[in-house]
Amino acid sequence: MTAVMPESLDTSRTMVEPAVRAALDRLDPDTRRVAGYQLGYWDEHGRPGSLGGKAMRGAFALLSARAAGATAERGLPGAVAVELVHNFSLLHDDVMDRDTERRHRPTAWTVFGTSAAILAGDVLLSTAAEVLGEAAEAQWAVRCLLAATRRLIAGQAADLRFEERADVGLDECIAMARDKTASLLSCATSIGAVLAAAPASLTMGLAAYGDHLGLAFQLVDDLLGIWGDPAATGKPVGSDLLSRKKSLPVVAALTAGNTSADELRELYREPIAEADVPHAAELVAAAGGRDWAESEASRQLDLALSRLDTLELPDDVRRELTELAQFVTGRDR
Amino acid sequence: MTAVMPESLDTSRTMVEPAVRAALDRLDPDTRRVAGYQLGYWDEHGRPGSLGGKAMRGAFALLSARAAGATAERGLPGAVAVELVHNFSLLHDDVMDRDTERRHRPTAWTVFGTSAAILAGDVLLSTAAEVLGEAAEAQWAVRCLLAATRRLIAGQAADLRFEERADVGLDECIAMARDKTASLLSCATSIGAVLAAAPASLTMGLAAYGDHLGLAFQLVDDLLGIWGDPAATGKPVGSDLLSRKKSLPVVAALTAGNTSADELRELYREPIAEADVPHAAELVAAAGGRDWAESEASRQLDLALSRLDTLELPDDVRRELTELAQFVTGRDR
Repeated sequence: MTAVMPESLDTSRTMVEPAVRAALDRLDPDTRRVAGYQLGYWDEHGRPGSLGGKAMRGAFALLSARAAGATAERGLPGAVAVELVHNFSLLHDDVMDRDTERRHRPTAWTVFGTSAAILAGDVLLSTAAEVLGEAAEAQWAVRCLLAATRRLIAGQAADLRFEERADVGLDECIAMARDKTASLLSCATSIGAVLAAAPASLTMGLAAYGDHLGLAFQLVDDLLGIWGDPAATGKPVGSDLLSRKKSLPVVAALTAGNTSADELRELYREPIAEADVPHAAELVAAAGGRDWAESEASRQLDLALSRLDTLELPDDVRRELTELAQFVTGRDR
Repeated sequence: MTAVMPESLDTSRTMVEPAVRAALDRLDPDTRRVAGYQLGYWDEHGRPGSLGGKAMRGAFALLSARAAGATAERGLPGAVAVELVHNFSLLHDDVMDRDTERRHRPTAWTVFGTSAAILAGDVLLSTAAEVLGEAAEAQWAVRCLLAATRRLIAGQAADLRFEERADVGLDECIAMARDKTASLLSCATSIGAVLAAAPASLTMGLAAYGDHLGLAFQLVDDLLGIWGDPAATGKPVGSDLLSRKKSLPVVAALTAGNTSADELRELYREPIAEADVPHAAELVAAAGGRDWAESEASRQLDLALSRLDTLELPDDVRRELTELAQFVTGRDR
């Protein structure tokens, strides 16, 4: 069964994409070409495509402004900024991880070269802060964005360090995922309210909703990285295991203290052959990593939704925030 | 004869370095270690050193606030921000250019790896905007910084593209240098005045001074890249020619339309052997590239200084801006 795209995502694309394209028009032609390829607006020859992402973070930013009783437009600079920061981090992550495919297309560095991809990421980060800084009520929104960006970078740094360590604990792995994924989502779900000068109780509540949801999202993403259908994920099958990524289900399995955990630890000592990927996946499941990740994803989604319950929100906004949370964690299927 | 460090640079280091160190304390330990190494605050093992750079851009930012009749402190967030952006760009440039030595030390990527150097650059850029965004009167200062950063990235992108092109014109090469070097220096020389809410005529005048000075500085830097003493520059001798960089004197030589230009063009077609570097340098000089760069550097310095003459400035500030301009273009020797 195919998931139906929530209406918020449609609205978001209609509003956010033109604003992101306008931001790209500020760039020099070289980095602009790479940035627009990354965003899916055109192919490697500059020919228009319609491969743009879902702009999920942008959708949250618009909803966040409406949560504060303002128009979606009020949150638009925040939506553009979080989308740009998200794509900055994808560009640099793909360079660092040497990933060759994303969203069913060759990654930007494989097409344009490493230097061009680094520069395009740099310019997206810089332009994100620039666009946001031009908005009214910008100062707090800029702080929100850049503190989230700093955490995102710290999370990616921890993730890289974990690859070299055999003894990563589950708590530090969760802290890493909070930094790497939840911080920007939490910024997205609150930045519109910040731009709309909402009271702190609302802003903080929306940020907490985004934090729980971000962790749920990362757990689901990690599960898909092992058991997902490559046709749906756009990544080669088992790529996370092949690169011996210390994703959340894997670390939960490695630290489970049972015989499957021991066997998995042995396997993770040396590079994993493609033929061994199915066995590695079985060991993660047998050690309990899959069950843990699935139930923790549910729990974090529930925490996100119950945090929403404590907030005073327009009815339609509450409904859309609920739908979107279920959609991005695959709970609508 | 050794150049005497202008007093402004001493003051700048005393004020700017502690503030930059405080900004680094926000970072996660991984990227902080790399960032502090880049800034010269400690060695690769985290042992304290005193290899910090001159903080030339920070000195200009402090002077810029004083130019507006404010205290140097008023310009401090701007000084920190331009120093961080400068070091962000050095970190990423060294990765892209695969340069192995800077300021007589191994470059950060050779010590910590490419990914760590990319992330440390990312976090410096993000933190620069964050620190600046927290200042009073931040909005225009943030715009000034990020527009300069965007131009800096565009300049680096053009520089990389030029390496693949045989037909680079002198005008586009000058435009590239303006983007790559002059834009951040122009931001540095005006951002303090922006933070001090100075009138636009003063801010624009200081920015124009910085723009001319930045171009002069790049011309001098390019000359040192060919004829400089490695002991003073901290770069291997002839490294710009070895990597067939399209620096300003080289492009001036290549486009000179004389026989030396033709010979140099032939030489630049293929990788240059270390033994051919002295001959390449001779050809640049014989074609007129060295003379042109020297006289253009003088002309740009004069333009910078005569722009200062049009501004109403405190006497000590005028003197220090003049001294510093002469120092950074080597005109005090």
